[in-house]
Amino acid sequence: MQLTPLLQAFKLGHTTPSAYLQSCLARIAKKETAIHAFAHIDIETAITQAEQSTLRYQQGRAYSAIDGIPLGIKDIIATYDMPTCMGSPIYTGWQSKRDALAVDALRRAGTIILGKTHTTEFAYGRAAPTKNPFNTAHTPGGSSSGTAAGVAAGFFPAGLATQTQGSILRPASYCGAFGYKPSHQLLSLEGIHPVSSSHDHLGVIANSLDLAWEMSKCIAQASSPTAAAVYANLMPPSQPPRLALLHTLAWGELNSKEREVFDTRIQTWRQSGIEVVDQYSDPDLAKFCQHLEQISQLSAEMVAADMAWPYLQYVERHAMQLSEKIKNAVTLGKTVAADHYLSLLRHRAELQHQAKRLAQKYELFVLPAASGVAPIGLSNTGSRSLLVYASFLGLPALSLPILEVAGLPMGVQLIGHWHQDHALFHYGHYLYQLSTQESHDETYFAD
Amino acid sequence: MQLTPLLQAFKLGHTTPSAYLQSCLARIAKKETAIHAFAHIDIETAITQAEQSTLRYQQGRAYSAIDGIPLGIKDIIATYDMPTCMGSPIYTGWQSKRDALAVDALRRAGTIILGKTHTTEFAYGRAAPTKNPFNTAHTPGGSSSGTAAGVAAGFFPAGLATQTQGSILRPASYCGAFGYKPSHQLLSLEGIHPVSSSHDHLGVIANSLDLAWEMSKCIAQASSPTAAAVYANLMPPSQPPRLALLHTLAWGELNSKEREVFDTRIQTWRQSGIEVVDQYSDPDLAKFCQHLEQISQLSAEMVAADMAWPYLQYVERHAMQLSEKIKNAVTLGKTVAADHYLSLLRHRAELQHQAKRLAQKYELFVLPAASGVAPIGLSNTGSRSLLVYASFLGLPALSLPILEVAGLPMGVQLIGHWHQDHALFHYGHYLYQLSTQESHDETYFAD
Repeated sequence: MQLTPLLQAFKLGHTTPSAYLQSCLARIAKKETAIHAFAHIDIETAITQAEQSTLRYQQGRAYSAIDGIPLGIKDIIATYDMPTCMGSPIYTGWQSKRDALAVDALRRAGTIILGKTHTTEFAYGRAAPTKNPFNTAHTPGGSSSGTAAGVAAGFFPAGLATQTQGSILRPASYCGAFGYKPSHQLLSLEGIHPVSSSHDHLGVIANSLDLAWEMSKCIAQASSPTAAAVYANLMPPSQPPRLALLHTLAWGELNSKEREVFDTRIQTWRQSGIEVVDQYSDPDLAKFCQHLEQISQLSAEMVAADMAWPYLQYVERHAMQLSEKIKNAVTLGKTVAADHYLSLLRHRAELQHQAKRLAQKYELFVLPAASGVAPIGLSNTGSRSLLVYASFLGLPALSLPILEVAGLPMGVQLIGHWHQDHALFHYGHYLYQLSTQESHDETYFAD
Repeated sequence: MQLTPLLQAFKLGHTTPSAYLQSCLARIAKKETAIHAFAHIDIETAITQAEQSTLRYQQGRAYSAIDGIPLGIKDIIATYDMPTCMGSPIYTGWQSKRDALAVDALRRAGTIILGKTHTTEFAYGRAAPTKNPFNTAHTPGGSSSGTAAGVAAGFFPAGLATQTQGSILRPASYCGAFGYKPSHQLLSLEGIHPVSSSHDHLGVIANSLDLAWEMSKCIAQASSPTAAAVYANLMPPSQPPRLALLHTLAWGELNSKEREVFDTRIQTWRQSGIEVVDQYSDPDLAKFCQHLEQISQLSAEMVAADMAWPYLQYVERHAMQLSEKIKNAVTLGKTVAADHYLSLLRHRAELQHQAKRLAQKYELFVLPAASGVAPIGLSNTGSRSLLVYASFLGLPALSLPILEVAGLPMGVQLIGHWHQDHALFHYGHYLYQLSTQESHDETYFAD
């Protein structure tokens, strides 16, 4: 994969991590008071680290392809040198003794941990104070609100995000960034506050695909040799011969203009020679789409049941500091009997099996990355209806920032196959290049 | 399974949790200054909780079979109301915002969290200050030193322990207690400081088998419905038709008297009609035993590699506060390449496959629970040579306190089959009853 202009520029010496960080800090100075991406920022340390990285490039001993990249870290992910507050007053000022595994891996690669980014309460409840850089009257999406908004505003080119049901791809879609949710359990969750062990994923929001790739690869290598192997080989962008549309009732959440823009993009893909199949021409696909309709309910029950630990403790000991949304989930979770949970697991395994069989026919599944553009208002972080499929099934998913409606960005969601994350990237890269002539790399900011 | 006298006594009202706690506190007052089982103790809260439990029994609404049982919690396991110090100055006074999943589950069952128990440094390094209640010149074993010594001294009838290579069964064996290490990943490790993701197990040290069972069942139900199913049915004690001795070179670590006591016990089992097979009469078993010889080395490499996170951070930021043992492990871990780690995983899978085939012939594997009785001195917590097999293979294991040499206890180790933890218990219970006439229940203390 070709490096983005930014990664190339560091390598070739056309710019330096210090100069690049200064441009980020200038945008932060200008816009952060309006955007509220950061829960915590450490500019002084970042400047020092950028200087050290600059020196490494000058001496030809950069630690990695992402040395010198400033990052925003979602504030449910532990850092040894900054508080981790989980978007909850329960954790105000809380300080970990260690970096989460992912943060540790990224630091060793020479990246600069610029700050912690706002999250909804425990990545599940009350909205963050963050606003959408494309229009501050709109939500940036949740729960990885600060990471997505920070990328869109040019505060940093990438950051860490997590997704339980829709929390990476939704804010990425609303903020015109690339969002990547890996295969389930690929990137280590060590040091990250849990929502649901069956659904939680660590991933990346970035302003370029190869930055998302390089960061994920770096974390995978520290996570496990099995994960590292998934990221071992990336092929050049290549055309996926056959795509399958996952057309479900939730597409009805898009308005007619949003739907038209999406359909038009698919049409251009077809015109360029890619076969895009819908449920009308493949009974197996039709059956799969029909089963997807139940996932929203199944996923909600499973996540709520998983939340018993540790949220039941928080409800009992910190009720006043918790949102109704979290309390309601815990209440729902109590109603999920063990036998029912086992039936949910069996149901999920059956759907994963169906997806695996479809993998023999289709390189990717395609659908909108969110239910239209970012809604107006900050308290509603948007619908997760179209995002929960990949989360529930544990399949890798990408949001490509290639659509726009009324000045707001909208993503196309690509879902890949189990542990075929590299294929998702090389096909995704091709579809991205096909869909846009201008570079949406590190210059694609909201200003 | 029949309840122990203690659990029966609570139920029948022959004694109360309050009265029982007082007997524990009396033993603590008398002996803790010599034993050093506790890193932290909260007597006042325990007394209040025992009163509440007593009331529940009187009103016929006990929360569970283990309501009112005072417990010691190994100090790498998080508690919301007591510090968790990991046996390391790095974590002095550190306070979690939440209970570990296991502690949360045990509290909900009405147990009394009496205190945190001493552990070796991060359950891996420097020895704890704890002494063996049977002879304070001897180690109680590690790393779950305080839990084992506390059970032996009658400070509490049971407690939580963890095992990466030998840290549950070794101290249980040295302290004359039952030690139980479940199948790998059965009991949730959420909220427990990691050593090695491939080897860490949560388990129990207790003065009775059914207390170990009831506690594990309680934690399993909160861990996952899959885990809960493993503990769903426990049959009465029953005679295992065929046992296989896992005779390896490490048996040479036992002295002649220890070996004689062990052999004599096996002989009595044979005389009672149990077939105990050794490697000379089964080539498959001989081949398996031969492969076990390599495990110690393979396990050491895997654990060291796993320790990269978070121990590399501690080495870099807190070198002065870390033992050489941990630093050396981190150094070894750096030498383990990803390819080699993958080959270790394949090797482990092959040995697990062999164990599974042997499961068709043998109900249990049998071997000494540790390399003899507790060694003299406190800095050496003993050999793990005979304990690492079950840890590496992820198979459930029990230590039965049924041997004695020169006034010190010694355990017999039973290894069961994957997710057949219930069979390990009902066969284990039979072998325990067969091996001892006197009750070794809650009255089996070191005084």
